[in-house]
Amino acid sequence: MDRETVFTYGAPGLKFGVGASDEIGFDLSQYDVRRVLVITDPGVAATGHPQRVAEQMAAFGIEAAVYDGVHVEPTDASFEAAIAHARGTGPWDAYVAVGGGSSIDTAKAVNLLTTNDGELMDYVNAPVGRARAPKRPLKPLVAVPTTTGTGAESTTICVLDVLALKVKTGISHARLRPTLAVVDPALTLTQPAGVTAAAGMDILCHALESYTARTYTSYDRKAPEQRVPYCGANPISDMWSEQAMTLLAASFRRAVHHGDDEEARGQMALAATMAGLGFGNAGVHIPHANAYPIAGRVRDFHPDGYPTDEPLVPHGMAVSLTAPEAFRWTFESSPERHLRAASLLSPGHEYVGPDALPGVLVDLMRDIAIPNGLAAVGYGADDVDDLVEGAMKQQRLLATAPREVTDEDAAGILERSLELW
Amino acid sequence: MDRETVFTYGAPGLKFGVGASDEIGFDLSQYDVRRVLVITDPGVAATGHPQRVAEQMAAFGIEAAVYDGVHVEPTDASFEAAIAHARGTGPWDAYVAVGGGSSIDTAKAVNLLTTNDGELMDYVNAPVGRARAPKRPLKPLVAVPTTTGTGAESTTICVLDVLALKVKTGISHARLRPTLAVVDPALTLTQPAGVTAAAGMDILCHALESYTARTYTSYDRKAPEQRVPYCGANPISDMWSEQAMTLLAASFRRAVHHGDDEEARGQMALAATMAGLGFGNAGVHIPHANAYPIAGRVRDFHPDGYPTDEPLVPHGMAVSLTAPEAFRWTFESSPERHLRAASLLSPGHEYVGPDALPGVLVDLMRDIAIPNGLAAVGYGADDVDDLVEGAMKQQRLLATAPREVTDEDAAGILERSLELW
Repeated sequence: MDRETVFTYGAPGLKFGVGASDEIGFDLSQYDVRRVLVITDPGVAATGHPQRVAEQMAAFGIEAAVYDGVHVEPTDASFEAAIAHARGTGPWDAYVAVGGGSSIDTAKAVNLLTTNDGELMDYVNAPVGRARAPKRPLKPLVAVPTTTGTGAESTTICVLDVLALKVKTGISHARLRPTLAVVDPALTLTQPAGVTAAAGMDILCHALESYTARTYTSYDRKAPEQRVPYCGANPISDMWSEQAMTLLAASFRRAVHHGDDEEARGQMALAATMAGLGFGNAGVHIPHANAYPIAGRVRDFHPDGYPTDEPLVPHGMAVSLTAPEAFRWTFESSPERHLRAASLLSPGHEYVGPDALPGVLVDLMRDIAIPNGLAAVGYGADDVDDLVEGAMKQQRLLATAPREVTDEDAAGILERSLELW
Repeated sequence: MDRETVFTYGAPGLKFGVGASDEIGFDLSQYDVRRVLVITDPGVAATGHPQRVAEQMAAFGIEAAVYDGVHVEPTDASFEAAIAHARGTGPWDAYVAVGGGSSIDTAKAVNLLTTNDGELMDYVNAPVGRARAPKRPLKPLVAVPTTTGTGAESTTICVLDVLALKVKTGISHARLRPTLAVVDPALTLTQPAGVTAAAGMDILCHALESYTARTYTSYDRKAPEQRVPYCGANPISDMWSEQAMTLLAASFRRAVHHGDDEEARGQMALAATMAGLGFGNAGVHIPHANAYPIAGRVRDFHPDGYPTDEPLVPHGMAVSLTAPEAFRWTFESSPERHLRAASLLSPGHEYVGPDALPGVLVDLMRDIAIPNGLAAVGYGADDVDDLVEGAMKQQRLLATAPREVTDEDAAGILERSLELW
């Protein structure tokens, strides 16, 4: 079989900067739309941002309504509720998602299921769902992230918990990608320090995982119908990852400890967007695969800065907890990339060997009050087998890892992540 | 008036690599199209590439025809002929442009005038035309560049000579941007050395001009309806420009002198794409403004590697001839950017002062056999006033220059460019 010689790259349009979210009415008027549904969660709705976006529409002859029923960490039930709402009140000509990854991902699912026939499980990744591809184009979707992390505004995937199966899975197709990302750092100024820390670790892992992913040339040659949005590390995703790491080095600690530092907030928002544009094409691997069961099987952890009504390991925190050990294990696949990443994240030092990048990560995680490993969020050695089983289900992600991951490899990484320092 | 805080960024989807052009039939089938017109010029048609692309369509139930009447350096007459052909043989559901900037720009105009009513001059930039904005969406346009230079596959503009007025102008609107760029370095392997040199200087100037352009934050705050695709230098265009310059430093001379060096060809194709993604959002300025009259008023220059039936100063060559003097003059606006550009283009030296970047450019131009200034392509001191008049008409471009350009400034740059070394 020949080696791959082709990579693909896709991205939403972008409007970036303080005040960008004041222009969404005009932007939507460019798509010839009449009725727009703004999709958000109750917490973000309480900030007034979604209502303010909806109120811009009237000046352009566009009718707008707000749906604020998004569940943070969406489930099949919460997706179904949003879809039923949109179907019942539609037809809608466009959607605007205002919020974190949960709102943006819910809007992707709503857009898919109001433009294509069938039901949610028809489109969910196999083996949980039937992995059907949408046959018809979707409506314009404008994504307005209010947390600096997920990169959901750039990606072609939406993630959900399937409650009956206790499994986190997703829907992945190029047509899910938002049409336009409106990134307004002013919307992130009130983000609590704990959220900035967890979401920032998500940015960092997006950049690091796509930078250390299998390169696109290492795969067998694909036929065009086999191409997926995540095609492995390539010269364009590498560039976005490097730039995101450079911004994180300058601003991550400042944004956590000085939330009113507008320059740092702006750089974090830009880093999130850039990392999203990178991993949205290259893919992520082991830390993200591990994060699915770490977040999904939470028992009673309640992090600072998040709603207290349900136990929660926030996505970015869940991703970060096995990152140091994952990158110690992947070091041998590309030492120069791991060392270069350490240099970008903490410039001015000489780095050698597999411990360098984990050391940089642990120093950062301590400084921004990420919990000290899996034990600190409630897992023990007895849970490792369960977590391995959950991580190994994420074969779509593990296919992007730079080394083949066995059950034993995953168990080793998870065990060594129980306590990080 | 407040300063601008917002920048915008748009890009086509991208499929890059050797073999990418074998998959266009499949790619178009994803847009639910039935009839596709392939647009090219006679020289490119003779390579067989456009016909080969058209023949992929049948396997996907798509009817395809080839129009090979594009004029290299398109005119209003050649645009009108292509539009009339497409209207007469349509309706077409999508377009594929295979060729250099001329073919891609012609396809943009055809797409515009077969999806929106009115005539060519309704849409051409004022004051030459009526600068109307298209009201309706355009059809999918797949751009397949066969020369590594113009970046037309990434941009929202098409350029034409208006014969009766002897003026080069264009049409500029976000909707003109191709849907998908298919960049296959294999299509550039037979590009003659003279074309690689001139087109490569175009890449270089795209990167340098957008890197040294006015920054987006230096403008007065725009209302959303005032935003144009070219918004000035910004963090994303800077990144593309830097990366393009790094690739050029590694591969430009090799691609000119060793045309069969596949790695160098691949890096030049990637540099062209990256520079296009940069300047397609930031804009270009003085060298491009000067290039309009330098190319437009040619008398009897016949460059190596190009068709010999008409006198021609190729676009990239025309751009490059005033670049050293333009960047000597813009140095004071941002010394650090000019010196950083010199370092990226010719690493390993210490650079200081306004002569550094011009020196790097002149060394390169001598090595790749670019003519020694305007005199070498047939202009004399007597022509400077004429050239100034032509350059100063390009206010849309000069608005992106980092210093305000008076007639005297332009005359000085042009005079000092008569002989470069």
